[in-house]
Amino acid sequence: MFWVIVSIVVSVAAMGVAAYFYRWVKALPCTDEKLNDIGKLIRDGAYTFIKTEYKTLAIFCGSVSVVILLLFPNPVWSGMGMGKNVLMMVAYILGSTLSAAAGVVGISISTVANVKSAFAAKKGIAPAFMAGFRGGAVMGMAVVATSLLGTAVLYLLTSSQEMIMAFSFGASSLALFAKAGGGIFTKTADISADLAGKVELGIPEDDPRNPAVIADNVGDNVGDVAGMGADLFDSNVAAIAAAVIIGVAVKRVDLVFLFGSLGLLASIVGVLLSRIGANGDPGRALNRGTYVTCGIFALFTLAASLLGGCPIEIWGCAMLGMVAGVVIGFTSEFFTGDDKKPVEKVARACQSGPAFTILSGFSYGLWSTLPSMTGIGLAALFSYKLAHLLDIRYATMNNDYAMLGIAIAALGMLSVVGMIISNDAYGPIVDNARGLAEMGGLGDDVLEITDKLDSAGNTSKAITKGFAIGAAGLTVIALLGAFIETVQSYGATVTLNLMDPVVFFGVLVGAAVPAIFSAMLILGVDRNAQTMVKEIHRQFREIPGLAEGKEGVKPEYGKCIDIAAKGAIRELIPAGLSAILITLAVGFLGGVNAVGGYLAGNIVSGLLLALLMSNAGGLWDNAKKFIESGNFGGKGSDAHKAAVIGDTVGDPFKDTAGPSLNTQITVVSLVSSLSAGLFVAASLIH
Amino acid sequence: MFWVIVSIVVSVAAMGVAAYFYRWVKALPCTDEKLNDIGKLIRDGAYTFIKTEYKTLAIFCGSVSVVILLLFPNPVWSGMGMGKNVLMMVAYILGSTLSAAAGVVGISISTVANVKSAFAAKKGIAPAFMAGFRGGAVMGMAVVATSLLGTAVLYLLTSSQEMIMAFSFGASSLALFAKAGGGIFTKTADISADLAGKVELGIPEDDPRNPAVIADNVGDNVGDVAGMGADLFDSNVAAIAAAVIIGVAVKRVDLVFLFGSLGLLASIVGVLLSRIGANGDPGRALNRGTYVTCGIFALFTLAASLLGGCPIEIWGCAMLGMVAGVVIGFTSEFFTGDDKKPVEKVARACQSGPAFTILSGFSYGLWSTLPSMTGIGLAALFSYKLAHLLDIRYATMNNDYAMLGIAIAALGMLSVVGMIISNDAYGPIVDNARGLAEMGGLGDDVLEITDKLDSAGNTSKAITKGFAIGAAGLTVIALLGAFIETVQSYGATVTLNLMDPVVFFGVLVGAAVPAIFSAMLILGVDRNAQTMVKEIHRQFREIPGLAEGKEGVKPEYGKCIDIAAKGAIRELIPAGLSAILITLAVGFLGGVNAVGGYLAGNIVSGLLLALLMSNAGGLWDNAKKFIESGNFGGKGSDAHKAAVIGDTVGDPFKDTAGPSLNTQITVVSLVSSLSAGLFVAASLIH
Repeated sequence: MFWVIVSIVVSVAAMGVAAYFYRWVKALPCTDEKLNDIGKLIRDGAYTFIKTEYKTLAIFCGSVSVVILLLFPNPVWSGMGMGKNVLMMVAYILGSTLSAAAGVVGISISTVANVKSAFAAKKGIAPAFMAGFRGGAVMGMAVVATSLLGTAVLYLLTSSQEMIMAFSFGASSLALFAKAGGGIFTKTADISADLAGKVELGIPEDDPRNPAVIADNVGDNVGDVAGMGADLFDSNVAAIAAAVIIGVAVKRVDLVFLFGSLGLLASIVGVLLSRIGANGDPGRALNRGTYVTCGIFALFTLAASLLGGCPIEIWGCAMLGMVAGVVIGFTSEFFTGDDKKPVEKVARACQSGPAFTILSGFSYGLWSTLPSMTGIGLAALFSYKLAHLLDIRYATMNNDYAMLGIAIAALGMLSVVGMIISNDAYGPIVDNARGLAEMGGLGDDVLEITDKLDSAGNTSKAITKGFAIGAAGLTVIALLGAFIETVQSYGATVTLNLMDPVVFFGVLVGAAVPAIFSAMLILGVDRNAQTMVKEIHRQFREIPGLAEGKEGVKPEYGKCIDIAAKGAIRELIPAGLSAILITLAVGFLGGVNAVGGYLAGNIVSGLLLALLMSNAGGLWDNAKKFIESGNFGGKGSDAHKAAVIGDTVGDPFKDTAGPSLNTQITVVSLVSSLSAGLFVAASLIH
Repeated sequence: MFWVIVSIVVSVAAMGVAAYFYRWVKALPCTDEKLNDIGKLIRDGAYTFIKTEYKTLAIFCGSVSVVILLLFPNPVWSGMGMGKNVLMMVAYILGSTLSAAAGVVGISISTVANVKSAFAAKKGIAPAFMAGFRGGAVMGMAVVATSLLGTAVLYLLTSSQEMIMAFSFGASSLALFAKAGGGIFTKTADISADLAGKVELGIPEDDPRNPAVIADNVGDNVGDVAGMGADLFDSNVAAIAAAVIIGVAVKRVDLVFLFGSLGLLASIVGVLLSRIGANGDPGRALNRGTYVTCGIFALFTLAASLLGGCPIEIWGCAMLGMVAGVVIGFTSEFFTGDDKKPVEKVARACQSGPAFTILSGFSYGLWSTLPSMTGIGLAALFSYKLAHLLDIRYATMNNDYAMLGIAIAALGMLSVVGMIISNDAYGPIVDNARGLAEMGGLGDDVLEITDKLDSAGNTSKAITKGFAIGAAGLTVIALLGAFIETVQSYGATVTLNLMDPVVFFGVLVGAAVPAIFSAMLILGVDRNAQTMVKEIHRQFREIPGLAEGKEGVKPEYGKCIDIAAKGAIRELIPAGLSAILITLAVGFLGGVNAVGGYLAGNIVSGLLLALLMSNAGGLWDNAKKFIESGNFGGKGSDAHKAAVIGDTVGDPFKDTAGPSLNTQITVVSLVSSLSAGLFVAASLIH
């Protein structure tokens, strides 16, 4: 239990750091009344949406709690008592509540740090960067600390894998909806503001005349901060949960908390060390932070291994995972970086019109899947083989150490998750700061600084997204192992032989689920944005003086926030629910073998589509920026118009569907593991 | 051997029907000199491309022949003699030659039937339809007859599964390049003609002033006729090959030829019965033909089963396959039919601009994957379970009957392939006839008729494409079984357990291959079309009187044909070769288990992408036509412009990448089976 205690201590320390940064950011000055007013509009909008969303989610989670109480792990009619069911329900509620709390913490800091960062930009790039970064770090520290603390405490109290799994399912099911809902909200507002504002009416980005501009900035907070926070909270919990479940088999759960706690410790050091010179490059500062954290993590864990306690093979697995994460990050950077070939080629294709923009960007997105998927496959393969040496040494059954190796590789990839979230939350904060600087009329010098901060956020985002997708891939492979352990604990066997047509049937259906999940989210954005564009047109037509920018005339910002919020809530439940229901349908039809195949198909197609959409989306975004910086005709040219269309297509790809797929595959894995007993007991085909 | 002989007899009969139709179409009158002249331009262009393409392919096939001679089935250094290697090389050459011949037959009839159909349209819809349909039927009969004849004769002479496999690999490797090359050629020309002609210069489709118009019509012949012919030749051979290899295990190869010959017989009857009234609906005539053929096939095979010779369970498998084909066809029709919701919704989204057009069409394409993949999965599952009853009855090893059930389901789905090819080849012929009517100035009445014929071709194409993709899916599942049989024949074992990380590594890499294969083809079209658009601009700028349509001024058609041809040949080799090389790399790295996973990943992602791209492409095409027929502002409106962009994106999706994926997954399966011995002997990881 030593490392469990260490995890709790480090988590509390990380919370202390979060609290310190929170107060530090809050204490920063902002004496600009206009800035404070706009900031308040954004903050109020974000809280309003979160409140409405959480109400809907509370109903959903409440219903699931009742289902758990009645059915899991033992149906009430099985006569095995309700004790475990109650505990499991509590763990589920705890997981979803902490996940929700992560979102609230994120919004509460990001809607403060945006104003502070905008104001600080008056004094230079360094103070503005620090306000944005430390704001992000509050989120990073809080999320990782709560996820580690939650699992550690739960494990300390119950020593039960089922409770950890229920906790993880609570986190995931909330994250699924928070990410999907936030993603639909943010892209509805973003696309509408761009299309109706920039393209049709020809007013600049973040112009206060645009009725969707506040909704757009609210979206950054609810989608990119709160949604992302819930998502990475969930990824981290799932990785720990998978490792715990597999670790129990070889009685080495301590290793899980060793890597978890030292990863968080490394992130704390990395975050504290991150700073930037007076004329420094914010992008390099962010990346340096990530790599420094990786290095510290490698050293800490090597020391722990050499001093005893952790077999060096397991340490190797963590390193393999970390390296794979870096490879995937580099791949994303290559395909989306604005100094690389793909972006230049797509920007060049924009000159031939929007169809070529779409075709070339989509093709490079397809290309980007090969290196990343090979990287994940190799990391899983080698960490399995490496850890399998321990199976041989200790003559364990079922290749348990080998599976643990994959789970530890996932933890290794997520080791720097504290740093990743800090970087990720930095993005929307400085994006907001840019909007505030524009709306608050802070002048061109300040805008230049906030533009620099914003563009650094975009680059680091590509890398951190690579980490997140890769880690989800490894985690879910480990969760597949956890599923099998669970099935075996019910006395059933799983073959997962691809030549069994029940398995193959599962694989085919599982592969289609990420496709329809993505389709539902994208169609949701598509529908909502069309409504919002109409509303923007109406306001410009009906509010006198708005188009001309007459002093004192303000658009009705609230109407747009309302459209985005209502639409997001309406769309998020069917998408998330259908993934869960299809899983249950496959399980009750084909039993555990079908579900095993289903999970594999789901992982593969989920990774494929997530990589495709994230990278194609990032690519279109940066191709547009590449043209805007004066290439191929620059702003206002036909090439630029084509690039804007590409960027609009890419928006829901990269910020709604793509990143939600992580969560979708995790949720489906956990649902399968939780329902394994039911599938064993009652399925049409065995 | 009874059914092998029947197959040969029926094949010869089908060839007789093909010859009869060929002479029938040739004997049709065309006294319009202008029509004959333009027809000759198209014919010459098609033959020029085919000659150049086949020269390149001859070099490729020659090189592969040498590799086979040296390595397969036994490496020369193994000291097991060269006899088998020589035979295998001959089988490979035979397969690729017949596949190439299928393309030549197709072009030779389609470039005649197009002129005859256009001229016949002067007399009404019925004679024009018959010219187009019987032209297509020449292709349909010839392709199926040669594929059945080739496998039957080869089996009669050698009784060797390896020879059948080499024959199939010859057919597939040629089809891979023919389909990819033809697909790049046709879409390069189509997109360029549309973008530069219709959109930018505002001249109508098929206007003779457009320098790309002949290349566009050539493309229909080399891509949609020759490429498609080689593709379905290959699908049919692969389905027979898989069934033969598995059939050998239970000594029931006769069943394979029973279903093959009766399917062809049903197609002969169906084709002979297809006609249309004076005011008939060509679309209904085509679909009726397909369903009638299905019915006849069901009756014939039921009779054969009841009269003895075929267990009723196996007949049930064929029916399951056929029904799944119809389900997939209906799905495609639902998602692409212009009287259905999705087309209307995408057309409506066009009003909000091109980004929404792309997003909504792409989403419905994603949606379409679920019913089709579930259908394939269920057909495989139930035919396996049904045929497994025979395993139990005869106490066979290895579930051989069960695997045969899947292979027979694939044959059942392909039973009507003769009819499918006839319908498929009808499409480009009447598309050409429409172009000829426009260029030859035959007047609006004739154009109205050819438009009707053309649009019927589009609808039936969606259904037949569904059949083709579904059959490829089932075939490749059966080929996976064939791969395992082959591995076992080398004394090695394959587990294909998804929890083996070697298998999972294979799955991940295999899933990425269809993505990069598609990306290479789409980028090829993208690059070529940009070059051709520039050439069209140049001609309009530099040829005096061209834009104004001055009498006697003709564009330089040949230049555009040349760009399309050279580009296609440059792009096709890397795409096809990389799929083969990655397969070998995975095999030599991870051995047969990695390859097994690789094949599964390849099938799943290949099906997913093929369905997505075919259906999204068809949807955009029909949404454009829906608007052109007067909805949402009609031709020339902003909605129409957005729809044209959607259609342009969809063109390489549905006609280049999507349909080539069938062939890609088949080739990769056959390469794996052929190289199984090498992977067993030499791989890094076992």
